[in-house]
Amino acid sequence: MSERDLRFLSELAAQLRVDSVRSSAAAGSGHPTSSMSAADLMAVLFACHLRYDFQAPDNPGNDHLIFSKGHASPLLYSLYKAAGAISDEELLSFRKRGSRLEGHPTPDLPWVDVATGSLGQGLPVGVGVATAGRLERLPYRVWVLCGDSELAEGSIWEAAEHAGVEGLANLTLIVDINRLGQHGPTRHGWDTGAYARRFGAFGWHTIEIDGHDPGQIDFAMNDACNTRRRPTAILAKTRKGEGVLEVENREGAHGKPLKDPDKAISELGGARDLRVEVLPPEPTGEPFRFHDGELTLPAYKVGDKVATRTGFGAALVAVGAARGEVVVVDGEVADSTKAEAFAKEFPERFVECYIAEQQLVAMAVGLQVRGWIPYGATFAAFFTRAYDFIRMAGVSRASIRLVGSHAGVSIGEDGPSQMGLEDLAMMRTVYGSTVLYPCDANQTAALTAAMADISGVSYLRTTRGDTPVIYQPGERFPVGGSSVLRQSAEDRATIVAAGVTVHEALAAADELGREGIQVGVLDMYSIKPIDTAALTEAATTTGTLITVEDHRPEGGLGDAVLDAVGELGPRVVKLAVRDLPGSATPEEQLADARIDRHAIAEAVKRVL
Amino acid sequence: MSERDLRFLSELAAQLRVDSVRSSAAAGSGHPTSSMSAADLMAVLFACHLRYDFQAPDNPGNDHLIFSKGHASPLLYSLYKAAGAISDEELLSFRKRGSRLEGHPTPDLPWVDVATGSLGQGLPVGVGVATAGRLERLPYRVWVLCGDSELAEGSIWEAAEHAGVEGLANLTLIVDINRLGQHGPTRHGWDTGAYARRFGAFGWHTIEIDGHDPGQIDFAMNDACNTRRRPTAILAKTRKGEGVLEVENREGAHGKPLKDPDKAISELGGARDLRVEVLPPEPTGEPFRFHDGELTLPAYKVGDKVATRTGFGAALVAVGAARGEVVVVDGEVADSTKAEAFAKEFPERFVECYIAEQQLVAMAVGLQVRGWIPYGATFAAFFTRAYDFIRMAGVSRASIRLVGSHAGVSIGEDGPSQMGLEDLAMMRTVYGSTVLYPCDANQTAALTAAMADISGVSYLRTTRGDTPVIYQPGERFPVGGSSVLRQSAEDRATIVAAGVTVHEALAAADELGREGIQVGVLDMYSIKPIDTAALTEAATTTGTLITVEDHRPEGGLGDAVLDAVGELGPRVVKLAVRDLPGSATPEEQLADARIDRHAIAEAVKRVL
Repeated sequence: MSERDLRFLSELAAQLRVDSVRSSAAAGSGHPTSSMSAADLMAVLFACHLRYDFQAPDNPGNDHLIFSKGHASPLLYSLYKAAGAISDEELLSFRKRGSRLEGHPTPDLPWVDVATGSLGQGLPVGVGVATAGRLERLPYRVWVLCGDSELAEGSIWEAAEHAGVEGLANLTLIVDINRLGQHGPTRHGWDTGAYARRFGAFGWHTIEIDGHDPGQIDFAMNDACNTRRRPTAILAKTRKGEGVLEVENREGAHGKPLKDPDKAISELGGARDLRVEVLPPEPTGEPFRFHDGELTLPAYKVGDKVATRTGFGAALVAVGAARGEVVVVDGEVADSTKAEAFAKEFPERFVECYIAEQQLVAMAVGLQVRGWIPYGATFAAFFTRAYDFIRMAGVSRASIRLVGSHAGVSIGEDGPSQMGLEDLAMMRTVYGSTVLYPCDANQTAALTAAMADISGVSYLRTTRGDTPVIYQPGERFPVGGSSVLRQSAEDRATIVAAGVTVHEALAAADELGREGIQVGVLDMYSIKPIDTAALTEAATTTGTLITVEDHRPEGGLGDAVLDAVGELGPRVVKLAVRDLPGSATPEEQLADARIDRHAIAEAVKRVL
Repeated sequence: MSERDLRFLSELAAQLRVDSVRSSAAAGSGHPTSSMSAADLMAVLFACHLRYDFQAPDNPGNDHLIFSKGHASPLLYSLYKAAGAISDEELLSFRKRGSRLEGHPTPDLPWVDVATGSLGQGLPVGVGVATAGRLERLPYRVWVLCGDSELAEGSIWEAAEHAGVEGLANLTLIVDINRLGQHGPTRHGWDTGAYARRFGAFGWHTIEIDGHDPGQIDFAMNDACNTRRRPTAILAKTRKGEGVLEVENREGAHGKPLKDPDKAISELGGARDLRVEVLPPEPTGEPFRFHDGELTLPAYKVGDKVATRTGFGAALVAVGAARGEVVVVDGEVADSTKAEAFAKEFPERFVECYIAEQQLVAMAVGLQVRGWIPYGATFAAFFTRAYDFIRMAGVSRASIRLVGSHAGVSIGEDGPSQMGLEDLAMMRTVYGSTVLYPCDANQTAALTAAMADISGVSYLRTTRGDTPVIYQPGERFPVGGSSVLRQSAEDRATIVAAGVTVHEALAAADELGREGIQVGVLDMYSIKPIDTAALTEAATTTGTLITVEDHRPEGGLGDAVLDAVGELGPRVVKLAVRDLPGSATPEEQLADARIDRHAIAEAVKRVL
């Protein structure tokens, strides 16, 4: 690298620092010091290694850059300015109402793949984007910038393991080891070797450098690009707040604008207006996609007993055959979730994530960044492991489909650790989510297919045990709809059920009917959005709704129904799992939780 | 070890296998093959190394044994039988309704510290128990049995990092490397070196052995006991289903009883009735505890502006001074959560968990196993990272106190990644949980102190910004209560608020009052349990409730209120955060989310 190049890189890094100081000062908040430590790293990346067309963020050959340390947003936005993507005026709108330049990056900006800011998520998502690159046979690289503090997150090591074992050589992690976290020093300080030993043990190529030396940075990035069969971790020793004495390498300077920005800017050599010419991507063809075909959903005979998870597995194969963009990820339980059927039919589109649910969800998020249609499956209970990733997928407006099996007490003997009893609440609360809970295999197949076209985070809840098929194959189940299963002019109440409790509700209605008490039954397969019109009709005609769900009383079907009719004020009685279950047969569990046919019939009689 | 000893250990292991087969066969379900692989490991542990008095599970000197691979419960229960703790008859009640011997172990059994079954949790909790051992200056050891599959969980590496850096030599991890997961082979198969390199890099002492050779197992456990300043990982190569040809080292045999149990039992040499004499613990004194003192809560002047997080931090110091069992854990954000005040006052009772929220919650769970009173703090948003641990803490009936700061859009500029908008829903849904959301610093102090005596998982939500002090110091706020802030006979509606929205509700009530519209204001600081009596009164007198919360509309305050009054059927209007916020000032955020004073007043007028 020539002396002139080195001087340009130093000047560019100084500009990035100055602009980080300026934007944070204008905002009155932000993380300039966390930006300043990584300025040299990013200057070299943008000037020498990144392949990206800022005018065409959808160019399939573009590299991907993920700021896992999302709080270094001032640096990211300063880079966008240096690359000519945003104006200086926009840079100074940082953190202001209505600005695209939020406190932490989100895909409101066309160059940002995913929202970051919850630490430890950028690398796992990067693993997903790198996996997509392999699938679609494109030569783009994925660059992830992490802080050192966030390496304490377990999700980083789920990602390290996945990338290391898979040998994702198109993935480069750059760690800005500035020694200082939000609250005091990190565990390993500047011991870059501590990180190198860890990543090395997980199968990565590692290189330890001075993160303020453009020559070393350039060498390391070249080394990463030339490394085959292994991802590379560049472990860069840096100083937080580098370049400004007031904050450089000092505790207590995290997450605040500098006290005297003018002095700091002059210490950094003043404002500059350099432009960095980012290399365009190599011309590539279109990303590889698997063939599309006809959609032929499985068909189950009314009256047969089939688990909804089985319907899901079979439908997944059908959707996979119809749509070449469909990919499936699972957490080493594909025989239970029934995603196995897809794995056998389309092994090249199935990603085994092992028991690492955070990486599982991040894999789905990363794959959809590149236009794939991912379905992710594990036990409903174990999606709680990845709630932060699911929440952030909502913030990223990522379109991912999650399918949780073994929901509720109806799994039987395995006991509470395996029972998804919080999943409906958890998924309903996610921004922009869709929550579906089918009761038979044909309905499950229809909804599984519908999910392919749902934007945002969608969730389907399946049941372990066999349940009767009650709908004809081919029946339509619009998202946001419901299905009236029993209705008469004499109805004195309406039972609102979903999933396994639909069958209990039907039996209860029959039992009550024999005693001369007519009740309606509504199959509320779409929990969010919910069919407010149907609920309103039931509420106004019968005046009493009995909700029954294999889920905790908080946040699930009952709350969704209450929310839908709250302004009308009908009487609503909620049956749900209120105690802590132990082991028992599925029938005993439903009875003990007081959500079986007998409990429903009793509740109706009590209310009327 | 003598030939006779070795023969006894082999026989004992055979008995454990036989009993695992028998109990699973009697249950018709269970995980015998996952039990059989670890039978030799546990036989040697029980016969030669574990110090435990089964008659006195509360003996402070007892070792702790955590089956992180909770599905190997048949092995655990077979060990209990061999140790004379349970009868053969009880063993055969495995997985039956009402039995203590559930599909996965829970603390219904007096010898089980925590529920397991969600993989990757036993080691992090073990790190907590081992940390307690240091605090209380007792020589007990913590033994954790993990499967190989669960090492893919990031939480394992959060624990490995914590234990390695802290040098928890009283912790021994035994990994049953049987090569086969639930769904096919694990990533590393029998490559014990792959695991040794990883744990070694994280600072552990490692030893690789044949997990079916009692001599090697005994050597390794001795080695672990004699290792100073480092935790030990015993990496034991085993065969799943060891001893029965039908299933030994075969795929597809996970999680099912054996097809021909009689044949298997005879292959294993038939049933036995050996008794293992577990060594009693060394006599120890009582666990060390810090001094108790007087409780003097901080007092804030009405009208001053103080953040509730500040009230929490100060109250934590007061509670710590009063109660020697109080310990605090934080995720490297103590300056934000204000747990820093405690860390400064009582550094020896503060555990920095760095940015590893799963380990943070597991640390709290492990500490309470030993009778400590843990408070855990991080951003409300980041507790989503540990939801599975919180859920399992509920199943464990663990008493932990979690405090989430920076809740809601009112944090302002940092944007959605940092906003806890799902935490109330998430925490309400946990079995046996308590959810508190104070609006001023005095109320926060009172509730922080009350939490020390709450059983189960309790959660306190704090606000970033300063809010007016509206309650006198010393006022009482019973859990499950509420506070009437505005009430008159002319009230035409009641605004139900909590936390930051209480102040908006008061301002709205004043604004409406000036226009001649009287409304009541209820401060619902206890979200779960909720004050049904107060809500019922409001619902019956005014007939209209307006709930307003800085949280998503699903699963939070509004749903809690609807649930409480659902059977009465008043009109309920919910104001909550429905869109995706960006960056803006706190005031702008509240206005944009339509939960500020003006939006509340408008909603009241619309409804009336």
